[in-house]
Amino acid sequence: MKFQENQKKIKFMTAALKEAEKAFNANEVPVGAVVVYDGKIIARGHNKREGEQLIHGHAEFLAMLKAAKKMGSWRLEDCDVYVTMEPCPMCAGAMIQARVKNLYYGVKDYKSGVADSVLKMFELPFSHKVHVEGMIMAEESEKILKEFFKKLRKK
Amino acid sequence: MKFQENQKKIKFMTAALKEAEKAFNANEVPVGAVVVYDGKIIARGHNKREGEQLIHGHAEFLAMLKAAKKMGSWRLEDCDVYVTMEPCPMCAGAMIQARVKNLYYGVKDYKSGVADSVLKMFELPFSHKVHVEGMIMAEESEKILKEFFKKLRKK
Repeated sequence: MKFQENQKKIKFMTAALKEAEKAFNANEVPVGAVVVYDGKIIARGHNKREGEQLIHGHAEFLAMLKAAKKMGSWRLEDCDVYVTMEPCPMCAGAMIQARVKNLYYGVKDYKSGVADSVLKMFELPFSHKVHVEGMIMAEESEKILKEFFKKLRKK
Repeated sequence: MKFQENQKKIKFMTAALKEAEKAFNANEVPVGAVVVYDGKIIARGHNKREGEQLIHGHAEFLAMLKAAKKMGSWRLEDCDVYVTMEPCPMCAGAMIQARVKNLYYGVKDYKSGVADSVLKMFELPFSHKVHVEGMIMAEESEKILKEFFKKLRKK
């Protein structure tokens, strides 16, 4: 059972990493996300902050908005979010607002992450609790970020 | 000077309250917001969570997105946000993301507010600091909320 659980997490985080690649190729900070409902990916997203000049252009935020549109509801109560980097307050807050069930993230973000790093936001007494598990495929999630910033410095 | 400052806050919070009224009339929790740049309102917003089933349908979030579209940039660095209720983590996080200069809010939200109530988010060591001032026209901001919930209970 635990093996299957891990396989599931790897499968969906791999899909999120493919989204991160799309961001990389578009010269955006390479973060990707998927939203999973009933064992299936219902929405994908990658960072679009610069290209589209969106305040909320983070991978997991865009994926959640797509999922909500698909579900016809802001309630993503039985949905899980997979994102390659620990979410910022805006995105973690959106998960609380949307009542996301589980959050799985890749690499930690020591500067802005609020699932574990700067703050444990999901442990605060808000009306909804998101269950969180980090460091899933963290190495792979970090590697693409490092490559991106290396490329950026060369320019 | 202080008198003029106060007059300015009252003027813009009154405009935010007008937005809250629009939400009230649309059967949404009556919260309203405006974004101010260079002494002028450049965007307005009111709560649209239920009608449009938007995760990010909060007044100040929608107003900030409109402002970013108008500015052609996610950077709202010299902008102030006026909102009738203390922001939740999602909206406060968006203010950090957008590098909003000043936040002025009306009534406190003891359940979800993170400018002062549940958490003082703007005092955490994020990359941007939003200056915050609360309790501006708090009574008026609370009154419309109370009326709304009274009407809701009667139904």
